[in-house]
Amino acid sequence: MLPAEFIKSLQNLIPSDRLYFDPVDCYAYAYDNSRKFFPPECVIFPLTTDETAKTVRLCNQFKIPLTPRGRGTGTAGGSLAEQGGATLSLEQMTQIISIDPPNRALVTEPGVLNETIQAAAKPHGFFWPPDPSSAAFSTIGGNLATSAGGPHAVKYGTTRDHVLGLTAVTGKGDIIKTGCYTTKGVVGYDLTRLLIGSEGTLAVITEMTLKLTPLPAAKSGLVAHYQDADSCASAIVSIMKEPQGPSALEFLDSGSLNLIRARNPELLPSDSQAMLMIEVDGTEHEIPETTAKLLAACQNSGLLKAVSVQNTADLWKVRKTLSPLLRDIAPKKINEDIVVPVDKIPRLLAGLSALCKQYQIANVNFGHAGNGNIHVNLLIDPDNPSESERAYKCLDQIFDLVISLNGTLSGEHGIGSEKRPYIGKELNDATLTLMKQIKLTFDPNNILNPGKLFP
Amino acid sequence: MLPAEFIKSLQNLIPSDRLYFDPVDCYAYAYDNSRKFFPPECVIFPLTTDETAKTVRLCNQFKIPLTPRGRGTGTAGGSLAEQGGATLSLEQMTQIISIDPPNRALVTEPGVLNETIQAAAKPHGFFWPPDPSSAAFSTIGGNLATSAGGPHAVKYGTTRDHVLGLTAVTGKGDIIKTGCYTTKGVVGYDLTRLLIGSEGTLAVITEMTLKLTPLPAAKSGLVAHYQDADSCASAIVSIMKEPQGPSALEFLDSGSLNLIRARNPELLPSDSQAMLMIEVDGTEHEIPETTAKLLAACQNSGLLKAVSVQNTADLWKVRKTLSPLLRDIAPKKINEDIVVPVDKIPRLLAGLSALCKQYQIANVNFGHAGNGNIHVNLLIDPDNPSESERAYKCLDQIFDLVISLNGTLSGEHGIGSEKRPYIGKELNDATLTLMKQIKLTFDPNNILNPGKLFP
Repeated sequence: MLPAEFIKSLQNLIPSDRLYFDPVDCYAYAYDNSRKFFPPECVIFPLTTDETAKTVRLCNQFKIPLTPRGRGTGTAGGSLAEQGGATLSLEQMTQIISIDPPNRALVTEPGVLNETIQAAAKPHGFFWPPDPSSAAFSTIGGNLATSAGGPHAVKYGTTRDHVLGLTAVTGKGDIIKTGCYTTKGVVGYDLTRLLIGSEGTLAVITEMTLKLTPLPAAKSGLVAHYQDADSCASAIVSIMKEPQGPSALEFLDSGSLNLIRARNPELLPSDSQAMLMIEVDGTEHEIPETTAKLLAACQNSGLLKAVSVQNTADLWKVRKTLSPLLRDIAPKKINEDIVVPVDKIPRLLAGLSALCKQYQIANVNFGHAGNGNIHVNLLIDPDNPSESERAYKCLDQIFDLVISLNGTLSGEHGIGSEKRPYIGKELNDATLTLMKQIKLTFDPNNILNPGKLFP
Repeated sequence: MLPAEFIKSLQNLIPSDRLYFDPVDCYAYAYDNSRKFFPPECVIFPLTTDETAKTVRLCNQFKIPLTPRGRGTGTAGGSLAEQGGATLSLEQMTQIISIDPPNRALVTEPGVLNETIQAAAKPHGFFWPPDPSSAAFSTIGGNLATSAGGPHAVKYGTTRDHVLGLTAVTGKGDIIKTGCYTTKGVVGYDLTRLLIGSEGTLAVITEMTLKLTPLPAAKSGLVAHYQDADSCASAIVSIMKEPQGPSALEFLDSGSLNLIRARNPELLPSDSQAMLMIEVDGTEHEIPETTAKLLAACQNSGLLKAVSVQNTADLWKVRKTLSPLLRDIAPKKINEDIVVPVDKIPRLLAGLSALCKQYQIANVNFGHAGNGNIHVNLLIDPDNPSESERAYKCLDQIFDLVISLNGTLSGEHGIGSEKRPYIGKELNDATLTLMKQIKLTFDPNNILNPGKLFP
């Protein structure tokens, strides 16, 4: 229960139309794409950095948990008010403050959707490279909080590579300014990247300067089908050896292809057991050159066919049918986004196959192969406790496999609450202890998204 | 004076041939390129992470200041033992641990020279983009400590964009592992980039995983001469508007050109008052296309001539004559590396000119114009106190100008001790306080490079 005095002070700070207390109103802020459910006791919608700072100070004074939230599209539970208290929804801070084409910079508030940023940058010949599949629905603030990536990360990197500076409010309610407006700068510690990916546990980002990238003049694509995962995995390694690499390199395994074929048989050849979708971007002159090289890299004895695709929208059609299908057949799937070094993908896929066979778990794998970032989906019936138990045992061993291959537990989803029990597999005690101390340096009363990340 | 018990414990830890106590031996570790002089009381040369950790723990126990050091090429005093105590020279940790072409990664110890990294990567078709002008002499550890940049940062970014993960020893002597081996990863806070650019104040980096970049297939260049700084500055803005930008864009002002002309008249046309050196890299097909576009962007009414240069080594010849010349005429020059947004360069140059005129200070400007990163040199006679006083008043106003143009005080040199008095012009109190707290989180007894960065 929120203290009456806290509520009164909050009402003095934020107008009533930007404060939810009614559980019915708060309900919509109780879930994200992790399918967990934690209703906050109130939802606060600040409009400015100053309002945010005052709100944080008030929560700090009363030690009320405060969970920052964009549009709740995350998959790791990062935006859920697990310990109750207040949710701080940044979704009404929707101003793009400036677009500065000569300096390739865009300054924005956190509630703007990724897609809106792209639409604003495009007329000037620019885009902002991070492209999570949630781009149409997810906020730029949420993208920064998780250092979101997407298919184009293989060429352009992830969120942390494309932010110049931030305004943020620490857990004490202090307003800090990090980074700078220029493409170079080494004044003090790099707090910008410390906050990016910190999942709202250190500070609330209220303004961000994004680095824009020129839109490529042209795009093209290839699709390649393989008779087995092994030959497909070696093609991935060959493709990534090319100096002029792809702008996207997506992999779908036989489980994914079977799902798609069951609904849309016309989209796929019947004998394909693994598929690559390859996008190339660049100048008009570069495209044919790079495409030819990547087509050559696709060749091996397991290749069924590789064809070029003129319209890259076609390229994404197959891929985009997949996620809804997965939800339909297994709404409670365990969805991981592990990463291994690219040349370890063959061993990862073989290991995944062996583990899922051992534990008798249906498994579908796909994802951003060019980064070694594979979405591993364990499809389980949540009403079958024995299957669920086997799946979590299997998952534990999958994470061990990933670490043994010099990989990482999460490429883009983050830790949130979902991967919290496993973080110790990757980070040693000294590193975890230090991270927890950094958390308390920013947020001494542990009010910002408390309990997340660390076990 | 170092306590006898500390010395005895240190001698039990590190063999005598890797410990200097003799002031004559320590002398060589008393200076860097800031031309300040602070002799350490001892110099320690660890060979491993474990030795480093034990050394740090010992210094922590006795509260002995410990200043990590590469090859002392920094210009901001960052590697000087300003408070005495011990210098930790990483220069004997010179193993390249692994080169992994399929995953574009190189793991190395900190004492390896930047140039040695390049030589190791080259046979595999790769390079490591950060290219400080000290590359032949500076260590990779020092490059990370300052987040070094160089001419190619305009296309490739700086050090923080090219490191995947670290092993480091905190001020408490804890061994932490940050980042990962893959190109994506969001597990916990980004301590990798927090350490990069922290100038040895948070932890000692003992191992680093570098991300390699494919060598461009071809390079070409242009040289453009202008009748005045104004027209040259507008050409910089036009060039940086091109989507396919240069791989380097260096600017030399009339002061720089006059210096070079005085010694090497044959290198430069007599009427040039400002010069651009433009490098283009890419595939064989890209080069002519990009070169033509940048040549067009050079055109304006102040252009004297713009010519293409086939051999890019020729392009750097003029530039490389400059630094030694500057040293000859003004060994105690104040050398800054301010940055402004590219479209503010015209206003910066006009402002610099006005300020130097007002304070009657000789001034030479050159640098990485594509990033807006200008090396401002105030040439003073250190034996002339009144000139020196005027120069520091002028510098103070130069920094104010930079901040008013939304710039930053340092693009690549760092703060060290040289810019410490000015950091408050750029960072607000809350941000500085937080940085100091982060420092104490890593290093509670303030033994690592104490006193640096913060006033």
